[in-house]
Amino acid sequence: MEKKIALLPGDGIGLEVMNGAVEILKAIEEHYYHRFHFQYGLIGGAAIDETNSPLPEQTLNMCKEADAVLLGSVGGPKWDQNPSHLRPERGLLALRKELDLYANLRPVETVESLLDSSPLKREFVEGVDFMIVRELTGGLYFGKPSERKVYGGEETVVDTLFYKRDEMVRIIEQAFELAQGRQKKVTSVDKANVLESSRMWREVAEEVAARYQDVELQHMLVDHAAMALIHNPKQFDVIVTENMFGDILSDEASMLTGSLGMLPSASLSSTGLHLYEPVHGSAPDIAGEDKANPVAMILSAAMMLRHSFGMNEEAEAVENAVKHVLDSGKRTADLAKKGEAPLSTTALVEEVKAAL
Amino acid sequence: MEKKIALLPGDGIGLEVMNGAVEILKAIEEHYYHRFHFQYGLIGGAAIDETNSPLPEQTLNMCKEADAVLLGSVGGPKWDQNPSHLRPERGLLALRKELDLYANLRPVETVESLLDSSPLKREFVEGVDFMIVRELTGGLYFGKPSERKVYGGEETVVDTLFYKRDEMVRIIEQAFELAQGRQKKVTSVDKANVLESSRMWREVAEEVAARYQDVELQHMLVDHAAMALIHNPKQFDVIVTENMFGDILSDEASMLTGSLGMLPSASLSSTGLHLYEPVHGSAPDIAGEDKANPVAMILSAAMMLRHSFGMNEEAEAVENAVKHVLDSGKRTADLAKKGEAPLSTTALVEEVKAAL
Ligand SMILES: CC(C)[C@H](C(=O)O)[C@@H](O)C(=O)O
Ligand SMILES: CC(C)[C@H](C(=O)O)[C@@H](O)C(=O)O
Repeated sequence: MEKKIALLPGDGIGLEVMNGAVEILKAIEEHYYHRFHFQYGLIGGAAIDETNSPLPEQTLNMCKEADAVLLGSVGGPKWDQNPSHLRPERGLLALRKELDLYANLRPVETVESLLDSSPLKREFVEGVDFMIVRELTGGLYFGKPSERKVYGGEETVVDTLFYKRDEMVRIIEQAFELAQGRQKKVTSVDKANVLESSRMWREVAEEVAARYQDVELQHMLVDHAAMALIHNPKQFDVIVTENMFGDILSDEASMLTGSLGMLPSASLSSTGLHLYEPVHGSAPDIAGEDKANPVAMILSAAMMLRHSFGMNEEAEAVENAVKHVLDSGKRTADLAKKGEAPLSTTALVEEVKAAL
Repeated sequence: MEKKIALLPGDGIGLEVMNGAVEILKAIEEHYYHRFHFQYGLIGGAAIDETNSPLPEQTLNMCKEADAVLLGSVGGPKWDQNPSHLRPERGLLALRKELDLYANLRPVETVESLLDSSPLKREFVEGVDFMIVRELTGGLYFGKPSERKVYGGEETVVDTLFYKRDEMVRIIEQAFELAQGRQKKVTSVDKANVLESSRMWREVAEEVAARYQDVELQHMLVDHAAMALIHNPKQFDVIVTENMFGDILSDEASMLTGSLGMLPSASLSSTGLHLYEPVHGSAPDIAGEDKANPVAMILSAAMMLRHSFGMNEEAEAVENAVKHVLDSGKRTADLAKKGEAPLSTTALVEEVKAAL
């Protein structure tokens, strides 16, 4: 197959881990006789520095013409004091909105050989395997007004949690579709005892559930979910929730696996053009030091092979190679055990390539 | 001293744990020659059943005339299908607003003898001792509009995250005041890379910090905080955050101690009339079975003795008695080790009384 892939390394460790993923994709290209056309674009802080915009027109157009987008990470202290329209995260949020990437899929799966790196006791995290489906283009992230106003001499501020019914329907449907291919259980997370939007969310979840009789639906309050992820994570199969709750819960859930450096994500759109990125951030403290864990980025590329290109065998080959390397005890600094010398980013990538 | 205490047991296990706390308060009354006047009021589902209102006028007036309020818990499946104005939680939210209980203090402290009950590994939670200060009368919980609307034939919904500057100032000041009596470190949690309200929150935090030169201020994004609570909870001293973030993070944090049945909270007002309640809910599944853990409720009463009545010695006596009982291995079902017979609620209360 011939595929155009837009590569947006972004900031911090984004470039290093992206290089790792490209290495692996090139190896796949060779082994399986595909042809990948890689095109690089600027986003985030890097784009602000060069073009004074966190998402340049050119990058957006390049993405729209591609078959899939791979993103590294955005942000860093360098741009933290910028006005809000000139912040790196704005580039990512704008890209999500422009490409209508409404469904963020974050698989959380613990790896046997890494269980000892988890802050949680083995018996709590062994066998954990669930998927968080986070709504990504609505809610507090995009609602208007989002502004300050002076009333009677007093400064006030407002952000808006806004959803259309259709936006709820499509993301909840997505969760049910996924559950059908898994353990057939959806946990819908909301705050229905306080928020009107959550009460509507719950209604929509019930409506959708009626169309998927083979899938079980459970409702859970967000505060309870924040506990349940720790004391009983094995109960989950597919978790679906709105944007902000999803942001918080998925980062929390990432801790079950021991390192944020392990977790890939896919952001699916209505148009068929999807984006793949690691869950981790740009880690400015270790950027440029060839230390970052490239696994999340490599697994994001594997998700792309599977979801965007239908290359199931290739995706599995990458995932197995990663697993093989980790099982053999080779790890980057974030996961290395006491007394073991950690591998560099490039060295780990070489190992994965060799294992392919 | 002579004090009027309003008792609102509420629903589910609320009544049982409240009885336990009253037993302990009566013992304190005797030992220390105080006079406590207990007055009972209805709230939540119990109030709906009797008066058709989750917060009857009579309860509110009784609270206003008291020196402090003790609350059990509200809610249960019986009222889950009620229209939103007839839900038990509405009673609690209305009470918070009416009494201006803007500062919810949730201490999170792990107990050596219970470390094995935590889902987290010992080395992560040993010595954890921090305080979450949650804003309790603003944000998404109370902002208007909170409603559905049809636009061009499509159903939409909105909730509103609203704050006045003064509401931010007073809660952040509260956090700094508390930090001065502790490890002198405040972590302010927000989502400043996305929300305008969070950017204002961050500014206010900086302004307040300038007036407390002896206290260190750190900003943390809410998604990062959800991770940090798991992989490095010892770094925290005082965490301050807005209402919804505080709801999620404090329930998450409660898991560090092993059981939600352990954690008390205080909700402080501007008027000097404060409310104390356990962090746990009404646990309808075990209500009426004399199984519930009364520790959180008893420790809430201890917080009342200290914060509302200035009875430091008495508060400490209660806390030490609880600690003594737990250290001696006596526990309710939520914490009992495999193979150990758990104590009933009343039996545990008797033990605490004996230890006083
Ligand atoms: C960078 C930030 C805007 C983003 C978000 O909050 O969505 C990130 O935390 C994420 O989860 O992808
Ligand atoms: C019962 C509910 C409305 C309440 C809240 O969300 O504030 C509870 O979860 C709490 O944390 O006290």
